[in-house]
Amino acid sequence: MKHFAFHLKQSYPMPLVGIIGEREASPENSLRAYTVGHLLAEHGFAIICGGLGGVMEAACRGACDAGGLTLGILPGVDAAEANPYVQIAIVTGLNEARNLLIVRSALALIAIGGEYGTLSEMAFALKMNKPVIALHSWQPERPGVSHPTLYPAQTPEEAVERLLQFVSSPTVRERELPTARS
Amino acid sequence: MKHFAFHLKQSYPMPLVGIIGEREASPENSLRAYTVGHLLAEHGFAIICGGLGGVMEAACRGACDAGGLTLGILPGVDAAEANPYVQIAIVTGLNEARNLLIVRSALALIAIGGEYGTLSEMAFALKMNKPVIALHSWQPERPGVSHPTLYPAQTPEEAVERLLQFVSSPTVRERELPTARS
Amino acid sequence: MKHFAFHLKQSYPMPLVGIIGEREASPENSLRAYTVGHLLAEHGFAIICGGLGGVMEAACRGACDAGGLTLGILPGVDAAEANPYVQIAIVTGLNEARNLLIVRSALALIAIGGEYGTLSEMAFALKMNKPVIALHSWQPERPGVSHPTLYPAQTPEEAVERLLQFVSSPTVRERELPTARS
Amino acid sequence: MKHFAFHLKQSYPMPLVGIIGEREASPENSLRAYTVGHLLAEHGFAIICGGLGGVMEAACRGACDAGGLTLGILPGVDAAEANPYVQIAIVTGLNEARNLLIVRSALALIAIGGEYGTLSEMAFALKMNKPVIALHSWQPERPGVSHPTLYPAQTPEEAVERLLQFVSSPTVRERELPTARS
Repeated sequence: MKHFAFHLKQSYPMPLVGIIGEREASPENSLRAYTVGHLLAEHGFAIICGGLGGVMEAACRGACDAGGLTLGILPGVDAAEANPYVQIAIVTGLNEARNLLIVRSALALIAIGGEYGTLSEMAFALKMNKPVIALHSWQPERPGVSHPTLYPAQTPEEAVERLLQFVSSPTVRERELPTARS
Repeated sequence: MKHFAFHLKQSYPMPLVGIIGEREASPENSLRAYTVGHLLAEHGFAIICGGLGGVMEAACRGACDAGGLTLGILPGVDAAEANPYVQIAIVTGLNEARNLLIVRSALALIAIGGEYGTLSEMAFALKMNKPVIALHSWQPERPGVSHPTLYPAQTPEEAVERLLQFVSSPTVRERELPTARS
Repeated sequence: MKHFAFHLKQSYPMPLVGIIGEREASPENSLRAYTVGHLLAEHGFAIICGGLGGVMEAACRGACDAGGLTLGILPGVDAAEANPYVQIAIVTGLNEARNLLIVRSALALIAIGGEYGTLSEMAFALKMNKPVIALHSWQPERPGVSHPTLYPAQTPEEAVERLLQFVSSPTVRERELPTARS
Repeated sequence: MKHFAFHLKQSYPMPLVGIIGEREASPENSLRAYTVGHLLAEHGFAIICGGLGGVMEAACRGACDAGGLTLGILPGVDAAEANPYVQIAIVTGLNEARNLLIVRSALALIAIGGEYGTLSEMAFALKMNKPVIALHSWQPERPGVSHPTLYPAQTPEEAVERLLQFVSSPTVRERELPTARS
């Protein structure tokens, strides 16, 4: 535990990146989510998601495999609904209202594929002026409206690279700010 | 109060129609919202909305002028933030998470113009398979996805007519079911 | 509807009184709740409660029988869980978090009997400095702590009389303020 | 990060212990909270709390000093309101409704001192049959009602010892289940 605590002391509250996407994921989107989770963990980010299956599970698995930290914000009343790669489970009992907590807690979000729940999260994030990287996801249209913080991406690598333009990696920050909060 | 109580006894729980839309409303959308509120009240519907300004206030005003009932689901912690045409104020303290309550409580929704909050509500409604009539509002696009319960409309009259295809007017229902629950 | 609208115009947003209490109610507490609901409606108050059975249902029934208005703030995702005397159902999907909405929306509360859910509502109400009349309900103890807005009562009549010391009846207010908001 | 990931793999989802208590803490209760946080971290528990000042901050500080993990479930919309010892901040925007999330996510809770918010959390925890150790905190009274999962304690050491009767330490569990989920 010493190493863990030492590491966190350099950068907490930890920068969280949200991953949102469909529960019934296509194989392509599952692979994209796995890779995104893996890459984010390599860059030192913890990921926050809805904690269930599909894109959420694949992203958590990828992050775990790269030694990262995973948070699941669960809709129901039972921690047992978390996928096996959720390390910290927040049990809300709020049903879909829990979507907002993911958006509020994340510095930026990556949307992968996505059903209507993903669209709701994307809408909240854009309302809060948070960067959303859309990887094969929604494109909301309204005449005369552009989305200043919505960025399309074609590959996991491009998505994470895009994200790093807005949120600096904790690993980098530690090197730059070695005495922060110590 | 006798008349009020008598009326309600015929049809409760009252059928609620949700009105969602932008807080900073254009004059055109305010007029559309006023007319929608007025028409819905004429058909005997109570309306439920976010209780604040813009489209919400115009719709409540229209409903009040037609003798209808208006509910406002407020985001903050103070009933005083309700617009003056909210007859029943539900104070949630949930901020944007209150959007979900409007969607869940309504049988169907009419979206007028709209910012990102409206888009989030539309997404939740479509997820719950509730009819959403979009009057100069969002059109969410994703390759290969259609929206089986999203209907565009050009005028308030068309919007309410569309809505009546999914939700029967309480006035009509009373005539058809004179002894319901009495 | 005209009479209804006219009436409401005098006093909206309508003053709401919260009724909280046990779902598995004893016959004594059911009768108390019925009488409280009836008395509050006679005084022109709308009541707001959790919308389910036991004390909630008895209070709604009493209010309906006196021609009053009843609101149920439901924990689940389906309006059908409302008791038959809920006239307006707010469907939250928030489970127990919906308790807070009852407290926030009410000017004052009457607690009748009560389980732990009632205790949570009482705690929130006292935190917000709202009057709580406890009719055979909880008495939270902590050394050195008194409850400036918690009032015990022995009968429904005493409870409503107590409440009228804090919240003036809408009927009275209309007589005193005949031109308000018209 | 390797050490961190390795450690977590043995025991996730991590067992969380909730710490609830007053925001305006007396020096005695701050010290109690610090000690409780320290002891829980020594036993390998992560702690979850409301993330603000007083008892919450003291407990987080104690846990950090012992190399533990701290989660703060914040009521507002800004991560900056977290105390400096919150390592992971969940931003809810739900105001007091966030109290429920602490209770739902924790296996058991320790209440230290406490205002009405603490009482609400205690009520929810008892409703969910979760152990609550009350360290100089509330004692809710109602004739004929006992609290099967509420346990008073006089010292931090006694409180944590009590808690260990209900929730086994992750350190112990790892020794017993060395191959779990690997």
